[in-house]
Amino acid sequence: MEIAHPYLLFLGDVPDALAAKTAIGIVDWRRDWCIGQVRLEGCVADTGLPDMAIEDGAKKGAKTMVVGAVNAGGRLPDHWVDSIVSALNAGMDVASGLHVRLGSIAAIAAAAKASGRSLYDVRHNTEVFPTGKGTKRPGKRILTVGTDCSVGKKYTALAMDRAMSARGYESSFCATGQTGVLISGRGVALDAVVADFISGAAEWLSPATHDNHWQVVEGQGSLFHPSFAGVTMGLLHGSQPDAFIVCHEPTRTTMRGVSTPLPSIQQVIDFTVQAGRLTNPDIRCIGIAVNTMALNEDEAWTFLAKVGEDHGLPATDPVRFGIDVIVDKVAAEFGGP
Amino acid sequence: MEIAHPYLLFLGDVPDALAAKTAIGIVDWRRDWCIGQVRLEGCVADTGLPDMAIEDGAKKGAKTMVVGAVNAGGRLPDHWVDSIVSALNAGMDVASGLHVRLGSIAAIAAAAKASGRSLYDVRHNTEVFPTGKGTKRPGKRILTVGTDCSVGKKYTALAMDRAMSARGYESSFCATGQTGVLISGRGVALDAVVADFISGAAEWLSPATHDNHWQVVEGQGSLFHPSFAGVTMGLLHGSQPDAFIVCHEPTRTTMRGVSTPLPSIQQVIDFTVQAGRLTNPDIRCIGIAVNTMALNEDEAWTFLAKVGEDHGLPATDPVRFGIDVIVDKVAAEFGGP
Repeated sequence: MEIAHPYLLFLGDVPDALAAKTAIGIVDWRRDWCIGQVRLEGCVADTGLPDMAIEDGAKKGAKTMVVGAVNAGGRLPDHWVDSIVSALNAGMDVASGLHVRLGSIAAIAAAAKASGRSLYDVRHNTEVFPTGKGTKRPGKRILTVGTDCSVGKKYTALAMDRAMSARGYESSFCATGQTGVLISGRGVALDAVVADFISGAAEWLSPATHDNHWQVVEGQGSLFHPSFAGVTMGLLHGSQPDAFIVCHEPTRTTMRGVSTPLPSIQQVIDFTVQAGRLTNPDIRCIGIAVNTMALNEDEAWTFLAKVGEDHGLPATDPVRFGIDVIVDKVAAEFGGP
Repeated sequence: MEIAHPYLLFLGDVPDALAAKTAIGIVDWRRDWCIGQVRLEGCVADTGLPDMAIEDGAKKGAKTMVVGAVNAGGRLPDHWVDSIVSALNAGMDVASGLHVRLGSIAAIAAAAKASGRSLYDVRHNTEVFPTGKGTKRPGKRILTVGTDCSVGKKYTALAMDRAMSARGYESSFCATGQTGVLISGRGVALDAVVADFISGAAEWLSPATHDNHWQVVEGQGSLFHPSFAGVTMGLLHGSQPDAFIVCHEPTRTTMRGVSTPLPSIQQVIDFTVQAGRLTNPDIRCIGIAVNTMALNEDEAWTFLAKVGEDHGLPATDPVRFGIDVIVDKVAAEFGGP
């Protein structure tokens, strides 16, 4: 799956910004790939991109219209279907992070066929993967892991990729979730892969490269989450990271969606090293990324200083304070670009 | 998925017993569910069941014809299609462990529709599972785990279920692989489940029961196998075993299909306890099941004695010497039936 850009972002008529977080994430990380946004009457979300009609987006060179919003219930309302059909008729591909497959809607399937354009359902997966092999590949890899789901693993990986590139490292971001795939134009929603092929898919998405190239792999789930640890384990084995960053949200007490208590950062470090050694004996933790949104700035600095000292590792909030201290750690451990 | 028995076993015209191992496994464990076998001209495999024509099997009361053999390449040859159509027309359901979906073959789909019979593709999975919750359920559970794939986890679980029943325990076998599903008539091929739902599927297949009931869950893969550890992890979390049995093959040096060295039995015990505590803090190892086929009887006894002593656990080859010593351990640790 390689989604062509520039993008035209479709926001529909969603009633709040949260419903358009996919589109907002794309603009945050790939502003230069985005030509404009399409908003229907009543849309409250706003990415800040110029508003334009679908046909105008196509004329300005957009290659793919991305459905970057989610309607209540995850359904695809009829008036969105009309917009998608218009995009196909205007010569664009359409990519979507919705649960429903675009091609399962007759009008969209017919328009795609008639126009010869492609439909990308990034929550689903049509790629056939081999099973993982566990063989060490050339290239260097960083994986983000977490004390829980939804603690900033995608953001941290994207920030790390951007900061390493800015420092002169050859770096690429490897997406493992739907929003990440739309942000990077390729990747695989790992949670949608058939279980036997998790580590194989992770090997596929961070393939052999040369030894000066860093692949920064978006983590999923947590080894301590009773719903998703299998996905996390397969991703860890398949991505065979040289280094990992632990992501954490300090106010959470139970793991997302279940009543299991949060593990400590140290437990995550130890277990990740223990399990990760299977495919990379040199795996090590290089930093801690904390989402400090719930703390004021003083509290955040205090918390980060303590966490950093306790673990002997750089600790930062990538959103609030940047991630350069973890790039410094890469330089110290693995050398400069 | 609940496959109705009695079964009529279809062996096709396979050239050796190995190709019919699914059928042979069914006869080994569920002889009383099997009415007969159907063999085409040239078939070399033999389950020992009476040979009969498809229509005769149906007349004798078979409810499901099980395709219990695999053709070279896993394809479904045209002359097998004719047999499957005949079975449907004779009023039986058809269950298959082949990769190809029965319903994807037009003649079979049409016959199923016309006859109103069901097709079961046990390698595939149509059940929609919730994500795992990690909440402790009533009932007791035993999981078989392994130092590798294909070291006797299914056999050990089936033997344990049978031996516990014989000793008066209320016990049931929970299948997680295609042959196991055909043997027990229900279950789920866990490796075919979408990654996000591995532990949820494991929770579904070993549901809440009463505290005197033991579910013996067929293990999959190995926590140390770089291809499949994600499946193993999700199964461990979802089945939340009170007790587990480590299965081992002593002559193997690298894991099946990859070049990763085999872990030690102690490593498997330690890592299983560590990971399994997440959903069952009381998880413990109750025995070691060794496939001693490559050893002569003296060597086998010597090996088992040493392994048992090294780990302070009962060790046996369930095929060669039975599994009663591990049932004794259940009685000692958890009480009698």
